[in-house]
Amino acid sequence: MKNTRVLLASRPFGLPQRENWKIETVDTTVPGEGEFLAEVLYISLDPAMRGWINEGKSYIEPVGVGDVMRAGGVARIIESRHPEFEAGDHVVGLSGAQKFWVSDGRGVTKVDPALVPLQKYLGVLGMPGMTAYFGILEIGKIKAGDTVLVSGAAGAVGAVVGQIAKIKGCRVIGIAGGEDKCRYLTDELGFDGAIDYKSESLHRAVGRLCPKGIDVYFDNVGGETLDVALAQLRLNARVVICGAISQYNNTAPIKGPENYLSLLINRATMQGFIVFDFVTDYAQAASEMSHWMADGRLQAREHIVEGLETFPETLLMLFDGSNQGKLIIKV
Amino acid sequence: MKNTRVLLASRPFGLPQRENWKIETVDTTVPGEGEFLAEVLYISLDPAMRGWINEGKSYIEPVGVGDVMRAGGVARIIESRHPEFEAGDHVVGLSGAQKFWVSDGRGVTKVDPALVPLQKYLGVLGMPGMTAYFGILEIGKIKAGDTVLVSGAAGAVGAVVGQIAKIKGCRVIGIAGGEDKCRYLTDELGFDGAIDYKSESLHRAVGRLCPKGIDVYFDNVGGETLDVALAQLRLNARVVICGAISQYNNTAPIKGPENYLSLLINRATMQGFIVFDFVTDYAQAASEMSHWMADGRLQAREHIVEGLETFPETLLMLFDGSNQGKLIIKV
Repeated sequence: MKNTRVLLASRPFGLPQRENWKIETVDTTVPGEGEFLAEVLYISLDPAMRGWINEGKSYIEPVGVGDVMRAGGVARIIESRHPEFEAGDHVVGLSGAQKFWVSDGRGVTKVDPALVPLQKYLGVLGMPGMTAYFGILEIGKIKAGDTVLVSGAAGAVGAVVGQIAKIKGCRVIGIAGGEDKCRYLTDELGFDGAIDYKSESLHRAVGRLCPKGIDVYFDNVGGETLDVALAQLRLNARVVICGAISQYNNTAPIKGPENYLSLLINRATMQGFIVFDFVTDYAQAASEMSHWMADGRLQAREHIVEGLETFPETLLMLFDGSNQGKLIIKV
Repeated sequence: MKNTRVLLASRPFGLPQRENWKIETVDTTVPGEGEFLAEVLYISLDPAMRGWINEGKSYIEPVGVGDVMRAGGVARIIESRHPEFEAGDHVVGLSGAQKFWVSDGRGVTKVDPALVPLQKYLGVLGMPGMTAYFGILEIGKIKAGDTVLVSGAAGAVGAVVGQIAKIKGCRVIGIAGGEDKCRYLTDELGFDGAIDYKSESLHRAVGRLCPKGIDVYFDNVGGETLDVALAQLRLNARVVICGAISQYNNTAPIKGPENYLSLLINRATMQGFIVFDFVTDYAQAASEMSHWMADGRLQAREHIVEGLETFPETLLMLFDGSNQGKLIIKV
């Protein structure tokens, strides 16, 4: 059996190019004692991947040059020599960007394809959903009546953040790129307002839609958007630093938030977090979110592209904003 | 009786110049019913003053052009028509930069000149001391064993921050400008280390003196120093934003912290605060700090310049770092 896999061929400077990747076909490894072999069905494409392929210290080891690209995946086990897994099980874990996956089971969770479609385990019930859940509840500490501003609001994390904030009784404004995404936020997800940053002044739009200022800003993008939000914080506001997609492909130094002294004036807090720290509570979060999904209060959509070979181009959709929902490759 | 007073003549662009101030002598106002008249003995010069003379929204109304410059002062009441104050009482409050002060008593506290020299009520037992106390304890949330880095460490706030952190069992490193100030930190105040930012690479020195990274960074200066500290945070670090003296006289936009994504990688928090929010706890803090002073565990020095007329030039000492201790004018 042949395995096709995506390797990091070289570290990108700026936006990852085709030549930074190598797609190769090799013999599939045989699982050893305590391992299983699985067929990867879907892999998740996430903005965080851009950080994983940079050199240098971060919250996780960088992907080595020549290594299989790290990726979350849903897979079906086809052979198991691991006592806790058997052939036919569906699992999620860091499968890597490849067709076949041999694992010792660490960090792997079984999932039920009868409960929700498998790709949801990479989105709303996967890392993006968990990021949204713990970020807005534990770091954002939202309470009913808060005005919540979310950037990247039509993305896999932002859409869930906004819906959870609505469930908790907040007024929610989303920032997204393009009329379609904005309509999706207000008409389908129930946001109180949406700002198309491509067609209007962000500063003026935030002023109009958050006339009393922002209690919680959930930042997925950084850059100019973070500065606009900082300038309009309310007293005791919380700024959740989840990501900075506008800065990930910079070839110049990152743009620091010029308006950070708003934290002082407004006695506000800016806090970063990593979803992996909440891993012991994932099951509880997934259970609560499943109930919200069953009730129709929490929706999620996926943008599925077919073919592992499309990985280099598909990844770029995250950075030009052309995906509509959680970006996934059907392997 | 004639009152001499310092007025804001125009708003400075960059460093305040002589022409931004007007010093005039006028008749002293007579206190009305419910007011007192006091002779101002000392006024406090604080970096925050630079923010107060800018136009625009902040945590406090800007000083109006043509108004007496806002300043904390210690004064002796010479005539009172206020039921709670009498002639001979010593008080602290926002007296303004002037020789005689008429007040309705709001925000005014009586102080005892027998307990500590009067000027201490503008320093360690005044706004800078309170800022240090609540900033490092309530916002920095220090605990024994933490590595604490303080910038502006020889200043009125920084010196108290470091000593409180030492009392609480932390390892404390201070950043200051010049050999004398650094020696003062280590030899007189008991800091574990001091960095002279004028003579060594800040980045390398922080690496050497905080080899495991920083648990709490107390920032009085902003700019490059904040970025160096952010780059060397430990997991769950707290960054206390107290001020940004390096940026107050900028004529260009403020330099935002390029390394703010360290908050994400290290699950760290950056939080601003305003000392006025803790006003109900000032008395408790002053009492605790007085005990530390009596025990010899908390020291403070003042840099006293004579003559209200020196205000325009004396204020600039804060920004070129030539004051040694809490900067005060003896009126």
